[in-house]
Amino acid sequence: MENELSRISVSQLTDTERIDTDGAVAREQPLTIILNNQELVTLLCTPVDINYLAIGFLYSEGLVEDKTSILKVTVDSKRGIARVETQNNAGPVTDILFKRIITSGCGRGASFYNVADMQKQTKVESRLTVPAYAILALTQEFQNRSKVYKATHGVHSAALCDSKSILVFNEDVGRHNAVDKIFGECFLKDISTDERIVITSGRISSEILLKVAHRNIPILISVSAPTDLGVKLANDLGITIVGLVRGKKMTVYTNDWRIASGGE
Amino acid sequence: MENELSRISVSQLTDTERIDTDGAVAREQPLTIILNNQELVTLLCTPVDINYLAIGFLYSEGLVEDKTSILKVTVDSKRGIARVETQNNAGPVTDILFKRIITSGCGRGASFYNVADMQKQTKVESRLTVPAYAILALTQEFQNRSKVYKATHGVHSAALCDSKSILVFNEDVGRHNAVDKIFGECFLKDISTDERIVITSGRISSEILLKVAHRNIPILISVSAPTDLGVKLANDLGITIVGLVRGKKMTVYTNDWRIASGGE
Repeated sequence: MENELSRISVSQLTDTERIDTDGAVAREQPLTIILNNQELVTLLCTPVDINYLAIGFLYSEGLVEDKTSILKVTVDSKRGIARVETQNNAGPVTDILFKRIITSGCGRGASFYNVADMQKQTKVESRLTVPAYAILALTQEFQNRSKVYKATHGVHSAALCDSKSILVFNEDVGRHNAVDKIFGECFLKDISTDERIVITSGRISSEILLKVAHRNIPILISVSAPTDLGVKLANDLGITIVGLVRGKKMTVYTNDWRIASGGE
Repeated sequence: MENELSRISVSQLTDTERIDTDGAVAREQPLTIILNNQELVTLLCTPVDINYLAIGFLYSEGLVEDKTSILKVTVDSKRGIARVETQNNAGPVTDILFKRIITSGCGRGASFYNVADMQKQTKVESRLTVPAYAILALTQEFQNRSKVYKATHGVHSAALCDSKSILVFNEDVGRHNAVDKIFGECFLKDISTDERIVITSGRISSEILLKVAHRNIPILISVSAPTDLGVKLANDLGITIVGLVRGKKMTVYTNDWRIASGGE
């Protein structure tokens, strides 16, 4: 965990007291992704597992499609650079950039996404159902695993799960990055995402919804809430959104037939 | 508030019960900013006060410097378009875009920012000090004002304050957007930001820190926490970061001489 945080001196105050003490803050560092020798994007991220982040980002953006097309991934953690070489060199990166609208994640993202992406996304057809108690147990485990968050309150977490346990987990200063790291690890380790569940600590905006739809995920769980556009897309794409999972309660926003209430 | 949320049907579940009820989710809509007849960026935002958002974004990115340079702002809320015409038409927008690195907010931002911005930012020289009890009172008022958040849990809030009360307040699905709306309103209404305090519900990443430094804000308060790069920049630029303001406690991360403990 030490690579994910910095220890600094802070003052803890109330209206009457001051205590000088040690605190921890989440590390934040630029990562430049270079695709086929062309600078593609600079993300600000937690500088851990940046190979997963780079590949997850490229996959989310539709710039890599399968593992065999990736020739080489080289990471320079210190300088914050990930170089990726692919077989199907699609031409100048500037063309890719300008084909797509630069849009917003958390209000402002470098997803190079356009409306066509939304339209060509196919519906998730899974018949997976999960009991409500399993959602509560998974979210509890998810929060226990979020150790950088507990130490810093400055990161988001994401996980891939089956209905019983967490399979892949990561944390990052960016909520998009955390999800990209999960999918990047799945991509590089050939972990299937079919019939799986994703948990995120962050809000479910349209972009997060499209990211999980792209990996054919039928159930998306959040400790936070979705936006109306996230809900609309989830309805259109057949994805179940479970939000505001807190204590023993949850709110199911879409496709609630996948979540069974009732005891064990 | 009705323009900021949508009402939908949801199911509230526990491990044993299911209640079908009404819920509210935050609205999320694309906003395309067109600067001098050229498409600049598409943000996903809460479709309210989009003139403030458009101007605040342009100001944060250094694309407008003072109010007299703005000839016209036209907003089409329904189609999600803001057209801004300025006096100093700096040339093709693509040039502006490519001079700057597309970076990350909340892990991924379309801030067209580069390292030079960080270096040319001047230090905040304010001698403003504020008692700890005033920070607690302002944050309490801030949370009471966050009505869209209370209804949806899907937005961030931001405010400009003096040491006694909130002067400007807004909410948005994006934490960057919420801050940009505040500064956009100040810009259009000639509200000075010198010697003022900014409160945000979101994490303090390097980009949020640079945004407030750009408006000469000496004190930045967050209900959440800063990153290490946010802390480093705040130290360099003479800004006080107060984070994790919860109940009667707060953590001061930088320049703690500005916050006085002790009773009224």
